[in-house]
Amino acid sequence: MNINLTPGPSQLFYTVPDHARHAFKEGITSISHRSKTFESYFQKATEGLKELLGIPTDYFIFFTGSATEVWEKSIQNLVENSSMHLVNGAFSNRYFEIAKQLGKHAQKMDAPLGQNFSSIPITNYGTELIAITQNETSTGVSLTNDFIREVREKNSEALIVVDAVSSMPYPALDYSQIDSVFFSVQKGFGMPAGLGVWAVNPRCIEKAESLLARGISIGSYHNLPTLLLNALKNQTTETPNVLGIYLLSCVVEDFLRIGIKKIRQETDYKAAILYQALRAHPLMSAFVKDESAQSKTVIVADCGEHSIRISNYLSEHGFNPGEGYGEKKKSQLRFANFPAHSKEQYERMVDLIENLR
Amino acid sequence: MNINLTPGPSQLFYTVPDHARHAFKEGITSISHRSKTFESYFQKATEGLKELLGIPTDYFIFFTGSATEVWEKSIQNLVENSSMHLVNGAFSNRYFEIAKQLGKHAQKMDAPLGQNFSSIPITNYGTELIAITQNETSTGVSLTNDFIREVREKNSEALIVVDAVSSMPYPALDYSQIDSVFFSVQKGFGMPAGLGVWAVNPRCIEKAESLLARGISIGSYHNLPTLLLNALKNQTTETPNVLGIYLLSCVVEDFLRIGIKKIRQETDYKAAILYQALRAHPLMSAFVKDESAQSKTVIVADCGEHSIRISNYLSEHGFNPGEGYGEKKKSQLRFANFPAHSKEQYERMVDLIENLR
Repeated sequence: MNINLTPGPSQLFYTVPDHARHAFKEGITSISHRSKTFESYFQKATEGLKELLGIPTDYFIFFTGSATEVWEKSIQNLVENSSMHLVNGAFSNRYFEIAKQLGKHAQKMDAPLGQNFSSIPITNYGTELIAITQNETSTGVSLTNDFIREVREKNSEALIVVDAVSSMPYPALDYSQIDSVFFSVQKGFGMPAGLGVWAVNPRCIEKAESLLARGISIGSYHNLPTLLLNALKNQTTETPNVLGIYLLSCVVEDFLRIGIKKIRQETDYKAAILYQALRAHPLMSAFVKDESAQSKTVIVADCGEHSIRISNYLSEHGFNPGEGYGEKKKSQLRFANFPAHSKEQYERMVDLIENLR
Repeated sequence: MNINLTPGPSQLFYTVPDHARHAFKEGITSISHRSKTFESYFQKATEGLKELLGIPTDYFIFFTGSATEVWEKSIQNLVENSSMHLVNGAFSNRYFEIAKQLGKHAQKMDAPLGQNFSSIPITNYGTELIAITQNETSTGVSLTNDFIREVREKNSEALIVVDAVSSMPYPALDYSQIDSVFFSVQKGFGMPAGLGVWAVNPRCIEKAESLLARGISIGSYHNLPTLLLNALKNQTTETPNVLGIYLLSCVVEDFLRIGIKKIRQETDYKAAILYQALRAHPLMSAFVKDESAQSKTVIVADCGEHSIRISNYLSEHGFNPGEGYGEKKKSQLRFANFPAHSKEQYERMVDLIENLR
């Protein structure tokens, strides 16, 4: 037994190796991305994602090489001049940096490390795009629907883009309050890395088209109008990661069979027992103190000087947590809590943590 | 038996399913792209490619989501104002279109359909970048090292970027005459799609850095300085297609074991017997008449009204050629000739073609 609890790439969902074996056996890796067979996988993946996550039918879903790519493409396609980035850790800060690299007037608001924005009043930012990292993989800080709703209320004219890279499929987002969401598949979907998923509503398409009409460069093969033109045929612009899209169509079907309600309940349960263990532990504690800001899918533990000892102890028993991020590399451990991690595994790991003194 | 002869995605190289099985079994799909293990695959793939293809040691090799992405990134990073595109088919024309979309002053020179540029005098184009599609997948027109050398001689100041998407690893390019080459892995390398390979020399890095220093946007996470910063650590900027990079490291090792000389000889042999059959055939003929322009890796046959009948006949015997491209969709067939296609398969297919009257 060797359970990968790093927050991404993470443990494969248990069905994935079989789906991959089928793909190789049936020659799915050699099919044309212009074939009816490919179109059926594209359609199954995108329609399945809408059903699983409750994404409205008028949204469009596109595939990219990574979620990092969506950072770039969302700025290029949705921002003429200015974006506002709500920064709650290293990854939301990279999104901000990318906007600056692309020559936009990017501003940011930093939450204190390990906290959400509850101490910072939300105002009208007078900006075109607000970037919200719903689940910050570096800190384990999560933002609520209520918070996103408040941002929207004060900024009705801005496009709200939500990075849910390390929480999907867990969060029940209120899509009436956002315009776009994106994530990658090597975390909550338990798949091999190499595929980003980008959902946008018609407002985003209109914005990209208006930039294009005014002669502003919005990129080429992966700009929104080009992605849309192909997605309407259940195709992609370029030769994509066909295997990845096929595997996603299979995993989404598996998740639909299990039911999103059960996936969310199990995620809540596993998070609850781990946070409970951290509250009571003499050597470890939750980095995020405010319970309403505690991520259910990336649980970050302050371990101080005991990090390596705890990590080694868990590894000896088959559980491999992630290191802390950046300056917290040596003093924290991060525990992914994805559908690939079973209740039984979490119970066993929490027992081990409780037994460590 | 079901042999895929479409020019991409194409037949898997025979070792790939086993390599993939190993990757899933050993948890390679879950490893961190910041781990030593990943770095070892990155290094094995890039150093192996240099050895296999004879790429000079001072070149850098980067990974993208697709070769289409390299069209975009090469223009963004290597062109301030103008590029010249030698267009010998639909894909070289898309490269040209992308340069225009990115707001560059892009010019093109069209070869007559199915021909190379032998009828067009090469001059100094007074441009920053010259895009050469060494093997045009839509027409089966291939360009020689001598031609590239002449372009270089007349344009020593321009960067020469070679699209070898559907010919690698076959062509023995003269790297002293070019500055960059790119390709994808679902063709000659017989791998699942979803990975582009981009090799650049130091002149390309300098050009990107000079654009950046002058405040020109060269993109973000996949601009050349950022790709380089990570590649020097055998890493990638984003979470990449880890499985793809691992499989490439394995296939390159397999190809090195076989030897590039033998791969090229077998490619020549298979091309020779198919072109020979086309020369003698009452219903089919080579689309590219000039032998020096005939691609060895994508062999395009004019079949007129007999296309569907010939395609069905070959399919019944397990061989699936690709359709023609664009306006030639119904009147041509395209035969990939990659390392995944064995001599024995080609001999059998050529027998079938010869027996068809």
